[in-house]
Amino acid sequence: MATTRKSARTTTSAAERPHPDATRRSQRSRQAIYDAALALVGEVGYPKTTIEGIAARAGVGKQTIYRWWSSKAQVLLEAFLDLGEQAVQGQGQGQGQGQGEPYAIPDTGDIAADLKAVLRATVDQLYDPKFEAPSRALAAEGLVNEQLGREFVAKLLEPSLQLHVDRLRAAQAAGQVRPEIDPRIALELFVSPLAQRWLQHTAPISYAYTDTLVDYALHGLAPR
Amino acid sequence: MATTRKSARTTTSAAERPHPDATRRSQRSRQAIYDAALALVGEVGYPKTTIEGIAARAGVGKQTIYRWWSSKAQVLLEAFLDLGEQAVQGQGQGQGQGQGEPYAIPDTGDIAADLKAVLRATVDQLYDPKFEAPSRALAAEGLVNEQLGREFVAKLLEPSLQLHVDRLRAAQAAGQVRPEIDPRIALELFVSPLAQRWLQHTAPISYAYTDTLVDYALHGLAPR
Repeated sequence: MATTRKSARTTTSAAERPHPDATRRSQRSRQAIYDAALALVGEVGYPKTTIEGIAARAGVGKQTIYRWWSSKAQVLLEAFLDLGEQAVQGQGQGQGQGQGEPYAIPDTGDIAADLKAVLRATVDQLYDPKFEAPSRALAAEGLVNEQLGREFVAKLLEPSLQLHVDRLRAAQAAGQVRPEIDPRIALELFVSPLAQRWLQHTAPISYAYTDTLVDYALHGLAPR
Repeated sequence: MATTRKSARTTTSAAERPHPDATRRSQRSRQAIYDAALALVGEVGYPKTTIEGIAARAGVGKQTIYRWWSSKAQVLLEAFLDLGEQAVQGQGQGQGQGQGEPYAIPDTGDIAADLKAVLRATVDQLYDPKFEAPSRALAAEGLVNEQLGREFVAKLLEPSLQLHVDRLRAAQAAGQVRPEIDPRIALELFVSPLAQRWLQHTAPISYAYTDTLVDYALHGLAPR
């Protein structure tokens, strides 16, 4: 399903559309390339990950990769998008919206419960070994390679943060968040602490911790 | 002054205490080594920074470095401690407490004003080129080198976070922060968003931004 959605992303004119069997083979190769790219970057880091290495590990020719992507950064970007989609599907959180971004944070009418649920799912993802090593390697590279960092933030991180913006806007409309709050800043009160604990190993993460973040963020630290 | 404080950290018995001229020379060498280590790690990254390279750039023998430190990680740790002390002194924030940690977040009785002031000073530091490149290089390495990351968090980051814990405890005593709040989690609501924006280039940082973080954290997002 992730691969179906992925192939829709590749622009192919009707004239050059391949035979269904060839499409299935392509999808298998594509998945093998994603898996190889994520495994390699987690094992050796971004600078030592090469198109040649990804091709060898995926069991495809180098030209197969260059036919679909222009650089290892592009391969990794799509591999992470695919990994994120698989994670969301695994959690049963996908909600078709018929537009570019196919997911949304659930809206049960209770902003605290909804934010706690999505942060708990994030905790699960951060403990998933398939996600952990490649994400950490990419984040590390993004810190010192500003161009790569900005591209991955724009294409991977910011779209997921925008889902929080959408959910907070709905909460504002429902009177559960004050109308003058800027949702793009507000989301950082619970997303960034979790990100920093995970990225920098500053302290353990748990459901109790993320639940507390949501409570503090919604109700503040000062006496009411 | 930073060097005076630094040499106090080195344990030297009275018998082997050097002549004052030798001490001054040592302090100059020490500062040259710190400067060289920070410049190098910012330019070539942590993995390519070597004791040899630091020695050559500082104009000292390799043995001079090995006499004082056991590894490049230790040199960098002290270089960052020295840089942090210089920054604090430059901002006139130092407050002697006569114990291991010589600084505190000022307590004017207004927790919002005090947190805003310390976050504004952090914004200034994050824009300081002397601090920016080496800090980013070290943070990047800490993400993938867990042992190094944990050591630097324990010795550099956590002590500065504890200053926020202390200030929030004082605010609890003064009735400005609710008594059931865990200060070690609470501080992350304003510290981590700033850290993530800076580390991952997710969005710009400014005084207006950090002021907003403090207001949101203290008063919460929900209607009061």
